[in-house]
Amino acid sequence: MRRTNLAELPCSLARSLQIVGERWTLLVLRDICLGWDRFEAIHDHLGIARNILKTRLDTLVEHEVVERTLYQEHPPRYEYGPTVKGRELMPILLAMVAWGDRWASPDGPPMLFTHETCGHDLVATIVCEACGGPFDLQTTSFRPGPGLT
Amino acid sequence: MRRTNLAELPCSLARSLQIVGERWTLLVLRDICLGWDRFEAIHDHLGIARNILKTRLDTLVEHEVVERTLYQEHPPRYEYGPTVKGRELMPILLAMVAWGDRWASPDGPPMLFTHETCGHDLVATIVCEACGGPFDLQTTSFRPGPGLT
Repeated sequence: MRRTNLAELPCSLARSLQIVGERWTLLVLRDICLGWDRFEAIHDHLGIARNILKTRLDTLVEHEVVERTLYQEHPPRYEYGPTVKGRELMPILLAMVAWGDRWASPDGPPMLFTHETCGHDLVATIVCEACGGPFDLQTTSFRPGPGLT
Repeated sequence: MRRTNLAELPCSLARSLQIVGERWTLLVLRDICLGWDRFEAIHDHLGIARNILKTRLDTLVEHEVVERTLYQEHPPRYEYGPTVKGRELMPILLAMVAWGDRWASPDGPPMLFTHETCGHDLVATIVCEACGGPFDLQTTSFRPGPGLT
């Protein structure tokens, strides 16, 4: 069986990756979340090619992860901000940061985060919403859900 | 400034994405974690082109996210399993599943997971490791870390 579109897989991971799984997309979203909210600022900060940045921003806007607002009319200029849907990806970004800190940053974390609510360094950790405990492959089983087609 | 390699960005998110950010890579890892552990099984399950699957598996092995074991000598055949580094990505996969369930699966979750430790449906949620509480853009600040170059 040959598929060409991730979204055809009956899997919410595939559907998430269809939206944010292209190269650079999550870095663009990270920049927007952290305040680089204009095209030129993101372009300068990431060093990404302009045509790729335009495509990635269009995808994020199309899927309502990011919203685009006109801030200047002549010539038209836009700024970008995360929607609620986009903000809910931010903890996933920080979980990937924590994994990269642990496995791919031998000189130590390039960036440190503070959880202002408790005052500690923020290391994003993933737990079971029901019990608050950790889980791994050994303690997780899976079965078909109502959306399986 | 123009970069061509995500790994050049002094950022653990970029470094993580350098390893697992290519299209299909996280789906291949998911399959391996869930037991589709041979080339033909992954190929049939995902419907991914053989040359792309080979490249993705090579990248995962190269970065020690997955290990390759010979299970048949004539002709040589391999099976794949996640390393500790790879297993630690599994909660991130399930956090992306939870986001996709919420935002991209209008017919309901295609797959349901059970946390065998507590017996409840497993919805992966991301919290601050220090206090166990939630965080978002408003409650998170950032600063340079020791690995910033």
